[in-house]
Amino acid sequence: MTITASQDQKLSRRLRLGMVGGGRGAFIGAVHRIAARLDDRWELVAGALSSDPERARLSGEDLLLKPDRIYGDFNEMARREKRLKDGIDAVSIVTPNHAHAAAARAFLKAGIHVICDKPLTTTRREADQLAKLARESGVIFAVTHNYTGYPLVRQARAMVQNGDLGAIRVVQVEYAQDWLATRTEETGNKQAEWRTDPARSGPAGSVGDIGTHAFNLAEFIVGDEVTTLAAELHTFVEGRRLDDNAHMMLRFASGARGQLWCSQVATGQENGLRIRVYGEKGGLEWNQENPNLLVFSPLGEPPRLIRRNGAGASDISRAASRIPGGHPEGYLEGFAQIYTDVAEQIAARLEGRDPDPLSLQAPTVDHGVRGVRFIDAAVRSSARKAAWVDV
Amino acid sequence: MTITASQDQKLSRRLRLGMVGGGRGAFIGAVHRIAARLDDRWELVAGALSSDPERARLSGEDLLLKPDRIYGDFNEMARREKRLKDGIDAVSIVTPNHAHAAAARAFLKAGIHVICDKPLTTTRREADQLAKLARESGVIFAVTHNYTGYPLVRQARAMVQNGDLGAIRVVQVEYAQDWLATRTEETGNKQAEWRTDPARSGPAGSVGDIGTHAFNLAEFIVGDEVTTLAAELHTFVEGRRLDDNAHMMLRFASGARGQLWCSQVATGQENGLRIRVYGEKGGLEWNQENPNLLVFSPLGEPPRLIRRNGAGASDISRAASRIPGGHPEGYLEGFAQIYTDVAEQIAARLEGRDPDPLSLQAPTVDHGVRGVRFIDAAVRSSARKAAWVDV
Amino acid sequence: MTITASQDQKLSRRLRLGMVGGGRGAFIGAVHRIAARLDDRWELVAGALSSDPERARLSGEDLLLKPDRIYGDFNEMARREKRLKDGIDAVSIVTPNHAHAAAARAFLKAGIHVICDKPLTTTRREADQLAKLARESGVIFAVTHNYTGYPLVRQARAMVQNGDLGAIRVVQVEYAQDWLATRTEETGNKQAEWRTDPARSGPAGSVGDIGTHAFNLAEFIVGDEVTTLAAELHTFVEGRRLDDNAHMMLRFASGARGQLWCSQVATGQENGLRIRVYGEKGGLEWNQENPNLLVFSPLGEPPRLIRRNGAGASDISRAASRIPGGHPEGYLEGFAQIYTDVAEQIAARLEGRDPDPLSLQAPTVDHGVRGVRFIDAAVRSSARKAAWVDV
Amino acid sequence: MTITASQDQKLSRRLRLGMVGGGRGAFIGAVHRIAARLDDRWELVAGALSSDPERARLSGEDLLLKPDRIYGDFNEMARREKRLKDGIDAVSIVTPNHAHAAAARAFLKAGIHVICDKPLTTTRREADQLAKLARESGVIFAVTHNYTGYPLVRQARAMVQNGDLGAIRVVQVEYAQDWLATRTEETGNKQAEWRTDPARSGPAGSVGDIGTHAFNLAEFIVGDEVTTLAAELHTFVEGRRLDDNAHMMLRFASGARGQLWCSQVATGQENGLRIRVYGEKGGLEWNQENPNLLVFSPLGEPPRLIRRNGAGASDISRAASRIPGGHPEGYLEGFAQIYTDVAEQIAARLEGRDPDPLSLQAPTVDHGVRGVRFIDAAVRSSARKAAWVDV
Repeated sequence: MTITASQDQKLSRRLRLGMVGGGRGAFIGAVHRIAARLDDRWELVAGALSSDPERARLSGEDLLLKPDRIYGDFNEMARREKRLKDGIDAVSIVTPNHAHAAAARAFLKAGIHVICDKPLTTTRREADQLAKLARESGVIFAVTHNYTGYPLVRQARAMVQNGDLGAIRVVQVEYAQDWLATRTEETGNKQAEWRTDPARSGPAGSVGDIGTHAFNLAEFIVGDEVTTLAAELHTFVEGRRLDDNAHMMLRFASGARGQLWCSQVATGQENGLRIRVYGEKGGLEWNQENPNLLVFSPLGEPPRLIRRNGAGASDISRAASRIPGGHPEGYLEGFAQIYTDVAEQIAARLEGRDPDPLSLQAPTVDHGVRGVRFIDAAVRSSARKAAWVDV
Repeated sequence: MTITASQDQKLSRRLRLGMVGGGRGAFIGAVHRIAARLDDRWELVAGALSSDPERARLSGEDLLLKPDRIYGDFNEMARREKRLKDGIDAVSIVTPNHAHAAAARAFLKAGIHVICDKPLTTTRREADQLAKLARESGVIFAVTHNYTGYPLVRQARAMVQNGDLGAIRVVQVEYAQDWLATRTEETGNKQAEWRTDPARSGPAGSVGDIGTHAFNLAEFIVGDEVTTLAAELHTFVEGRRLDDNAHMMLRFASGARGQLWCSQVATGQENGLRIRVYGEKGGLEWNQENPNLLVFSPLGEPPRLIRRNGAGASDISRAASRIPGGHPEGYLEGFAQIYTDVAEQIAARLEGRDPDPLSLQAPTVDHGVRGVRFIDAAVRSSARKAAWVDV
Repeated sequence: MTITASQDQKLSRRLRLGMVGGGRGAFIGAVHRIAARLDDRWELVAGALSSDPERARLSGEDLLLKPDRIYGDFNEMARREKRLKDGIDAVSIVTPNHAHAAAARAFLKAGIHVICDKPLTTTRREADQLAKLARESGVIFAVTHNYTGYPLVRQARAMVQNGDLGAIRVVQVEYAQDWLATRTEETGNKQAEWRTDPARSGPAGSVGDIGTHAFNLAEFIVGDEVTTLAAELHTFVEGRRLDDNAHMMLRFASGARGQLWCSQVATGQENGLRIRVYGEKGGLEWNQENPNLLVFSPLGEPPRLIRRNGAGASDISRAASRIPGGHPEGYLEGFAQIYTDVAEQIAARLEGRDPDPLSLQAPTVDHGVRGVRFIDAAVRSSARKAAWVDV
Repeated sequence: MTITASQDQKLSRRLRLGMVGGGRGAFIGAVHRIAARLDDRWELVAGALSSDPERARLSGEDLLLKPDRIYGDFNEMARREKRLKDGIDAVSIVTPNHAHAAAARAFLKAGIHVICDKPLTTTRREADQLAKLARESGVIFAVTHNYTGYPLVRQARAMVQNGDLGAIRVVQVEYAQDWLATRTEETGNKQAEWRTDPARSGPAGSVGDIGTHAFNLAEFIVGDEVTTLAAELHTFVEGRRLDDNAHMMLRFASGARGQLWCSQVATGQENGLRIRVYGEKGGLEWNQENPNLLVFSPLGEPPRLIRRNGAGASDISRAASRIPGGHPEGYLEGFAQIYTDVAEQIAARLEGRDPDPLSLQAPTVDHGVRGVRFIDAAVRSSARKAAWVDV
């Protein structure tokens, strides 16, 4: 009530966005578009929205794109947008996983900033190459590990950094869904089809689709890297070609120990991404399905309910909020924050100034690489009876 | 996961929006702007964002409005926009309460559709006149009783209509906050200043600011009118000029009985709008702070957790959702739904077709009038020792 | 883990208990018996367990009472037990409401301590007479407003007394059930039969059965008396002779204002006794169905989760606990606390010492009188269109 | 409301109980005593309450035991009670872990039924020997894996057996506390002292103290055995000699996979025993800290809140309940159920009839053996870098 909608005020400019993938029948493309416009920093002006040219055209028309900014091919789009006076400032890549790398390379080479969905690539080699190319090209490269955009996730990270929990001992992270509890991939569901297809999804199923989010969230909040892990991947649904559940043990560089569970067959779970972090002096608990609440338990004191933009919320979390406490923000606002951060980084470059340091919390290609290494390690460990392997 | 972001697909057009009020330092104006653009149906192109011309100009620049569409006066704005070829399709009125009526009249007379914040006016007479004028002019007039935009609120209403609860007996509704638990109005907080000032807020404080939302929610879900009420208004904070707490008993036309509580001094409560409805065959419970959950308790069976866009969600609630269950939507998405509904109504007129019937759920001037009558009745009852008075 | 089961240690003696009512088919009698033995302070040795002599005999045998301590009549029991060397120290009266007064008088006259179920009597006159008789006789007279035996209810009261909440402004109390949502009284359910029968239950239904508990809880925690109330009683189930729902507004002596709701037709509610208290400096929330948690919200700070016998639990609540935090106690333990308190009071007399002051928190005949006055006031107010009446 | 307190009715007899351990300063002994008397099936008549004779005497006096039934030595107690006409029917063994075996042997040899705390013994060999001896002696031997006494835990087991969840795929079980987050064992806390001392606690700390409960709960509900596990045990508190945290992966005979976490350093957790079971057709979730609720999620339907003794509660869970839904039962009632079950088994023998089959759900020496094998396997696996080992 007493706080203005902070993300809405005083625009210096609106940036031009292009999109690769995300046409008719897609899910995550639409999410990216809402996220991009929510804080009014972006305008979608161009797209190669499908690898099928006709579908690309119809999808572009659906979104009222100008005909000459609707492309049937992302290479053409990169080449042409680079030359346009009002060409795109950045591109969103929201295709199935296997197509990320080629598209990203095209725009990197054109010097256009990239926002890429996760997992970054389907192989570790590709991921490393892409990171190298990004570094060399100097463009901004964000990867939408979007859950780090939630205000209280950022507060959790800051509290750990600040020592509020003391040295971290135990990390319990999980991401559980149930939408693949049956053979969803044979019902015509496009999301399920490509996510369970090794050719498009990569070597992992649930581990790549959601396990990477859990892993990223743990490393982000703890502010520490997982050095080794032991994993067992399971495929419960008959005939499925990739894992739909996985159990892991994690070792962090600092000595903290963790457990990770991801599942797409956990009946009754919708999108249960949840993390608990226990340190010498306190514990934290956060649950994506009720993201406006962070429970902080200082040792020997009653747990405290820290609510987004409410009493106890830090400046870091307030800066990522739009509306007062008690007015719930959700998944789209958290996702929007990533877009807003990237917009700030780009605007700062265009204006020759330093970006707001808070905007640098947006996940980069390096976080994307970590995700791919995680998938790779999990698959290798599982093939060796859950032996400990380096990440 | 398996559901597309329904509000994003296939735009027929984007409508042009103007705004009155909502400049620098305002809260709800920013909310309206996010709500308007979230589903991509609207583009903000004009504004008289403050009654102070200089502030209006600066506020317009903040939002990248074109200079010739920044107005210092809403009358001028109404006159000029009416004549422009690309003039606004609708105006949002987001000033303090006392200024709603005059602004609304100006745009009604210009034949421009109106979206007005609540409470509609500060007097019952003004409200009735406005409703009459709206009817005569034939324009679309929405009032942002925004909580009716939540998908599960709409599902709750449909379940009652459908007889899932049987005849309704008891309605418990409350709206509790704590941001006025101290003399917030003397701390420089602009929201608190005008909301506790009878000249700008009208004859009621908490009753007008949030009690109206609770009342509207109850009538919306129950699908029935409150005929009489008994109310006691309280002012707990010394020196305050309007109520900051109220207790009421409600009688519905159908014979159902209710209790309403609103408070802005309920320490620890952020934005606790909550409703429980009990019928002969079942009960419902919904809480705005966790809006993705509706608890339905059929008599003699275990309560069921209906989650937005999850198992058990109806088509009506799915149509007001953007993303899959487990990916929380919040206050802004619920608010956006009202804008999306109004856009559909206007687009249908422009295209000479019937609007999607679901879009007609958006609250109209008549709901605004009910809210003003509610305030009026509560104030009158309280002045008479909580005697029963007609609404 | 680190706390001993405090109620179990070091018995000085076990007291002898008799019971009136509570034979086969009864509910609350069995609860009283478990409550009495839970902390090992009492041994049940005598009973007039039914007004039907044969049923009384069989019921006594069920409980392994000695034949000569099984009575068919409570007057005979009072006379004989008074004379026995090992006669009962106290009697529990657990009959339907209308029979409390006569039984209590018999034991008061015999100088035997009394534990009586609530409501104390069915008329205000009888209640006042009983209180007078109790005062004159000098015996201990407890009334089982059992919810005050919960540790965190006692902590809540102490926090209010201690000023942790500042001056109290608003009290919201409710007690909602659904077991009378249909004509339960015609299904052979004995509990429902007498509770809906004015001859046995008194002038009120839900108000007497559960509203009194809510009222008692509010006065107990706030530490203040309700001076006047405005009530509307409803009977929703056709053919029912007493109220099954009621709405009230309360005024406390200190100036605090409250709302009370009780219902036995609130579909989906099992035993929803819940209270929220808001003061100038903080708020409290407690819910009987999850009694091991007290939420304390200091103004401007995050709410704190105070857990029974956990961090933040006060000595007063620890003294009423048996086992460590996280090991939930429930209804029976709260009820047992009343018995344990009374045992301490009696033991202190027998041992010629002062009782533990904490034991004096057990509700007395005066609280029983308050409950009867509350019922009387509610019925009078409702008969006068919810006019304000004195309690 | 409509249900009698089922455990209280119609006693055929009260059994005589003796106790070994549980004197002054102990925790679990007091819990056993409350549990034994709660349902009125037992009377404590004898004890060797401490290995220190003077402490044993004082402790016996505290509990009002007759002087000649207070023993300084359990061997003497076994010998003498065996010969007494009114000797004990059963003995409770509640000493530290290392002393269980010798005491149990003494009473087994005397033909006295045994109720023993968990873990059964500190070595696998001792456990196997004890089980063999129990089988040969023919006495009833219960092990207080008390969490299986909770009504909804029994319902969960029955639902799995009944196929309500389909074939089980994933089991997530955890037991988290924080009372050993610091060097509690050096603060004079007796519980902490022996639990962190290998000589008295055995080869494991948290794994033996609480991990065994989690393991037992999982096997009980799933109705299946864990065949192999991979475990890593951690000691976070400097100087501690046993584990205070452990992570495990589990493989069930049926093919189900599980994760187990136990911790006594999870800051903010009091007694967080929680299990989630996912099958092909549905999922279940239960949390010991709110034991009156079982969440059942049938695939594709809204989750259902099954409440103890409420709508949806099965006969099996009702039989283990005392009071109606909404009147919470807790830890002591669950523990009492084990005592009540054993009483029924013994009474049936004394009366020459078959026991109520439901009473056979009480955990036996075989469950005790499983617990010891679990500890042994966990310790072995952890010593081999979390290799898979047989249980």
